[in-house]
Amino acid sequence: MFTTATPGRFTAAFRLHPAGVALITADAGTGPVALTATSVSSVSVDPPMLMFSVSDASSSAPTLRCADTVVIHLLGADERHLAKLGASSGIDRFADTALWRRLPTGEAYFPQARVRIRARVAQRVRAGTSCVLIAQALEAAGPGVDGEPARTPLVYHDRTWHGLDDRSKLG
Amino acid sequence: MFTTATPGRFTAAFRLHPAGVALITADAGTGPVALTATSVSSVSVDPPMLMFSVSDASSSAPTLRCADTVVIHLLGADERHLAKLGASSGIDRFADTALWRRLPTGEAYFPQARVRIRARVAQRVRAGTSCVLIAQALEAAGPGVDGEPARTPLVYHDRTWHGLDDRSKLG
Repeated sequence: MFTTATPGRFTAAFRLHPAGVALITADAGTGPVALTATSVSSVSVDPPMLMFSVSDASSSAPTLRCADTVVIHLLGADERHLAKLGASSGIDRFADTALWRRLPTGEAYFPQARVRIRARVAQRVRAGTSCVLIAQALEAAGPGVDGEPARTPLVYHDRTWHGLDDRSKLG
Repeated sequence: MFTTATPGRFTAAFRLHPAGVALITADAGTGPVALTATSVSSVSVDPPMLMFSVSDASSSAPTLRCADTVVIHLLGADERHLAKLGASSGIDRFADTALWRRLPTGEAYFPQARVRIRARVAQRVRAGTSCVLIAQALEAAGPGVDGEPARTPLVYHDRTWHGLDDRSKLG
């Protein structure tokens, strides 16, 4: 029987909905920000567009509300140090200057990530206590966009990191 | 080095980005439609809101462009027959009347899915050749929203179905 979708029941449902993991960076002129997001998905192929959402409670929200461009890093299981970096609060996510660089266009990015996509924000839509961003991919880099055979991707599920491999395949 | 994000490179990147799997149903008065989507994600908890995208090429697109409400089914590994149903073209997805029912409010739904969420479409946003829908959850049902311990969820990655379990956990 369907009964009210309370915040608690809604959270329980999505806690068990698995998702790929991305690190998103942006800089609106006040210094770079980074956040780990499980909401990134492809929306359109031609033109190439993607979407994700950012909670108002995120320390990155003020920058993401006004940045023109973002860098989306799609993460593999061996890059979960980057996922943890963007998910830890109260730290300087850019303290280790060996981990990140600047693009010629100014954006901060993490060159270890197997997929890096620079995208221009096309739309921002208010949705409850979050903002949905829709962005058009401009440039991309990394083995994951240049024909490398699949590596183990990173999945977040039930507050735990998982990896996929041949053993997790279903018939 | 970052180079142009062509449709081919963009597709390659997201082909290897894993995602949970949902079956979405809707009926705008012309009969029920169903489609399998890997773009569903939670956006806001209070109010409870979610988002997903629908390609213009989907046979369900005309209905989803005007339906007031939708039902989102989050699928487990043992429900991949429902995922396949919504992903197969050229079939009557409602031919097996034992698989689905109608809610008192009229929506068609699949009671086997471990999470069912009835939601009202709050916003539609054009994004390239797709439409992004943002919806507010109204009601929910299923063991996945009522405290059941985690079952094996269904993941789509590199055109293959995967399941998660203790063996896929990472440290």
